[in-house]
Parts: sequence; C-alpha cells; structure tokens
Amino acid sequence: MRPIDTLVYGIGLAGVAAQAAAGVLEAGNKRFDLFGMVVVALAASLGGGSLRDMLLDRQVFWIADQSYLVTALLAALAAFALARVMRLPARLFLLPDAIGLALFTVSGTQAALALDAPWLVASLMGVITGAFGGIVRDVLCNEVPLVFSGALYATASWVGALLLVALSEFEVAHTWAALLAGSVVLAIRLSAMRFGWRLPVFRARM
Amino acid sequence: MRPIDTLVYGIGLAGVAAQAAAGVLEAGNKRFDLFGMVVVALAASLGGGSLRDMLLDRQVFWIADQSYLVTALLAALAAFALARVMRLPARLFLLPDAIGLALFTVSGTQAALALDAPWLVASLMGVITGAFGGIVRDVLCNEVPLVFSGALYATASWVGALLLVALSEFEVAHTWAALLAGSVVLAIRLSAMRFGWRLPVFRARM
Amino acid sequence: MRPIDTLVYGIGLAGVAAQAAAGVLEAGNKRFDLFGMVVVALAASLGGGSLRDMLLDRQVFWIADQSYLVTALLAALAAFALARVMRLPARLFLLPDAIGLALFTVSGTQAALALDAPWLVASLMGVITGAFGGIVRDVLCNEVPLVFSGALYATASWVGALLLVALSEFEVAHTWAALLAGSVVLAIRLSAMRFGWRLPVFRARM
Repeated sequence: MRPIDTLVYGIGLAGVAAQAAAGVLEAGNKRFDLFGMVVVALAASLGGGSLRDMLLDRQVFWIADQSYLVTALLAALAAFALARVMRLPARLFLLPDAIGLALFTVSGTQAALALDAPWLVASLMGVITGAFGGIVRDVLCNEVPLVFSGALYATASWVGALLLVALSEFEVAHTWAALLAGSVVLAIRLSAMRFGWRLPVFRARM
Repeated sequence: MRPIDTLVYGIGLAGVAAQAAAGVLEAGNKRFDLFGMVVVALAASLGGGSLRDMLLDRQVFWIADQSYLVTALLAALAAFALARVMRLPARLFLLPDAIGLALFTVSGTQAALALDAPWLVASLMGVITGAFGGIVRDVLCNEVPLVFSGALYATASWVGALLLVALSEFEVAHTWAALLAGSVVLAIRLSAMRFGWRLPVFRARM
Repeated sequence: MRPIDTLVYGIGLAGVAAQAAAGVLEAGNKRFDLFGMVVVALAASLGGGSLRDMLLDRQVFWIADQSYLVTALLAALAAFALARVMRLPARLFLLPDAIGLALFTVSGTQAALALDAPWLVASLMGVITGAFGGIVRDVLCNEVPLVFSGALYATASWVGALLLVALSEFEVAHTWAALLAGSVVLAIRLSAMRFGWRLPVFRARM
C-alpha cells in the first residue's frame, strides 16, 4: 500500500473504534449486559457500511476484511472496561467520530460512483455509510434516533457527499476530491457542534 | 414504452410520492429536523421495495432508476414546506397511498414469480413491498407499527398477492391478472377504511 | 437424505416453529391484530437466517425452501388460536427455543465457514442466525431487546460458535463438531435459565 492508503485505512479503523466506543457509552443507562453492549457497538460502527454494501450488492466490508470487526470488538470491550472504573466523558469520542463520519461519507460515495450509480444515489450512499449506524444504535436502545435532531450530523455528510459527486463529475483527481469533500464534512460538523447550528425543526399543524 | 407501461410507471411514482408525504406527516409531532423527516420519508416510501430486492438478490430498484429517489425526496420536501404554512389533513394522502399499496403489492409479487419463487414466498414479497415501509417508518419514530393494528392494510395486500399467484398459476394474462389483483387490494383497503373493518385482536391469557 | 440430515432438518423446522410461537406469545399484551402477530412471528423465526444470508450474499433460506415459511406461519396461527382459548405458559417454548438456538448457531457458523469467512466473522454469523430474530421481534414490539439482558442467550450462542470454528480449524469431522458445539450451546443456555446466570451489567459513570 502507498503511505496515503495506509493512512486512510488507519483513519477508517480509528473511525470504527470511535463509533463503537461511543455506542457503548450512549447505551450506558439502559442496563444492557456485556453482550448487549457489544451488539449495539457493532451495529453502530459497522451498520452503515453493511447496509451500503447490501444495497449495492458488494461483498460486505467487514466480512472481506476481519480487521474492522476485531477493531470494533476491542474498542467496545475497552470502553466497557474503562467506563466501569472511571468517568468517560462522551465528548472524548466526538472528534474521532467526526473524522470517521467524514471518512465513511467519502468511502461510501466513492464506492457507489465506482459502480456507476446515479449521482443522487451515490450521495445518499455516502450518508447511509456515515449515519445509518447511529440510527440503528438508537433504535436498538429504544430511543428516537439522535441523528434526526442532532447538530447537522447527517447534513454535514450529505453536503460533503454531493460535493464529492460534483468534483468527480468535473474529473478532479480522486485523492484531492476525497480530501476536499472530507474536510468539508469535518468542518461543517465541528462548526455545528461548536456554534449549536441546527436544521429547521418540523412541526405539522394538526 | 407502451401507454399501459407508462401509466403503471406513473402510478408507481405517485405511490412513492404519497407514501413519502404521508411519512412526513405521521412523524409530525416528533420534533425531527428536516433531515430526520427526509430519512423517515425515504424509509417509508422506498423501504419495502429495498427489502424485497435485497431478499430476492435483485438490483435495488431505486439504485437502478433514480427517478424513485428524486420523487420521494421532492414529495417529502413539498410536504415539509406545505405543512409549515397550512394544515395538511393526513387523509389527503390515503387514496394515493392505497393506490400505491395496490401497485406495490402487484409489482412485488410479480417480481418474485418472475424469479420462480415458491407461491407463498411470492405472495409474502408482495406484502413486504407494500407494507414494510410503513413498519420501518413507525420503528424510526419509536412507535408500535400502525400496520399491526390498522384497517386491513397488510391484509388487503396479502389477499391481492395470493389472488395474483393463483391467477398466474392458471396462466391468466399478466396485465389482466395484475389489474384484477390490484383492484381487489384497493377495494378491500378502501372498504376497510370506510366501514371500520378490523382483524381480530390478539390478547393472550397470561 | 441420510437419517442424520433428516433429523437435523426436522429439528430446524421445530426450532423455527418454537421461535414463531414464542414471538406470538411475547407480543401478547400489545393488542396487535392477527397480521401484526404473524409479522412478529415471521421476523422472530426467520429474521436471523435472513440477515445472515443477505450479509453472506447467499440465497435466503426460506426463499429457496418454502417449508420454513409454511412452518412459521402455521405455528404462529396455532399459537394465536390456542392463546385465545387457554393459558399458554411462555415457558412451554423455552426448550424447543433453546434447541433451535443451538441448531441455528451451528448452521449459521457452518454456512459462513463454507464460504471461507474469517474465523471471527464466522462465529458472529452463528450468533446473528441464532439471536437476531429475537432482537427484531422486540424492536417491532417497541421494547428494549430482551436478548441484551437475558440469561446468556446470545452468549451461549457465541461460545458454541467459537468452539465450532476452533474444531473445524483442527479438522474435526463436521458431524461431531456440530454435535459438540450444539450441545455446548444448549447446556450453557439451559444452565443459565436454571441457575439464573447473568453477564455483568454495564452502568457507565456519567
């Protein structure tokens, strides 16, 4: 692998680990047992990519390469063990989680573009890869998904995915397009958390 | 395309639009943000066909033809915008939704029959295509699925799907079989809503 | 079929029937209608194997062989009818359910090994096949999944799956490995129910 590929691969594993650990913490006050935590962590960290691969009819990424599953499992166990002996602030995982979101968005969109998916479909695949895991996590914990009311989580992902689609339409080199789109996701998400940006909330007149 | 195919295609898009708009309205008092509404709308309108295609190992319909995704997205945004300025009665979407149910049931069953699925499986695929979207919508909104206690929604779908399977067993021409089965779905669903028909409710003695 | 295969096939059908009946009973106080019960029963009994087959990109087992679907449907209807006229103790289904868990774990793991999946992935496929149905059932009923806090349900499955992976690594004959691993699942699950064994519960310090 070229150094850049190694870096991207490493960031991907770090993103999986962050989402798994965040999954363990968010389910903290549900009194799940150890196995329940592991399932929530696996669903949170691998769910988005699994749905993307099943929809696109590709081989599921963590079946092809076991490293992702091992990483998610170890991160979940570590978070479980640590949270029993010390106070882990949920904020600890927000930065790696945001980096993971940016990376998953880029990889999901590129995977769909590589299969000649139409542009809107390709951008949605980026969002699914980035945000679906969090939806499954909250459904398993019997909560209304946070993604639906949070600080531009999926919106940041969608903006970046659409940008990436546009850049590849104009034949910008893959590496640069990915870097730019990923940075945009990261910048929007971090700014939204910092400044409390929100999407308009829906309230139907009934 | 022949005129009849164009008509069926148009009704299919209208059904997708109706289910997307109904998804937006039903999630109305959950205080989701704009993205949350869009996800619920996409899941409600495209979820059934997606599960059918993944189970049957066909290419997912909205990946092959982007029009469905665009339609669902535009319908969700339009319902979102309209519901902020005026009162949209949920009943507005019941007729297009029922037509969509009839059409999805027929297309789901025919897709399974075309792949030589066994008869009971084929009929279930019709029901999944018609009713699964509503189940996902309610799970995302953290509600017990309405389909499970509503006015013969899925039952109408299953009766029509079984009829379609029987008709193709007796080698009735495709177009006529589809038309008859779809009309039966529509008739049962509309009558059930009009006259308040219900399935027996389960109450276990515990 | 050899007698042993016939036996395994029969136990598999009995496991499906037990999980379908248990699904009907567990949803008992939700006031679902007949169709809602059937959906919960189908999801509980066929959901795990369906997810396994979609992840592994195999043909979904109940689409290939309709017997599973027919069995699940009949068991659900029978449980529905019986529960209206007499008191069915939920415990009635615990033994067949545990046997089903053991068998699904073995068949799920073997299916993944046959496709040369990595060892951890293969063991997880066994757990998914055994335990995912119960998770979907509880999500549909809008409950926090029981599997996450129950008596070593999924843990028994995972221990057996890991044992099976190890045995096939050492090239133990398939039939013996399956028998041993299945017995271990059954023994752990039944002991855990009898003696009230539990996994450590997670409580984050927040």
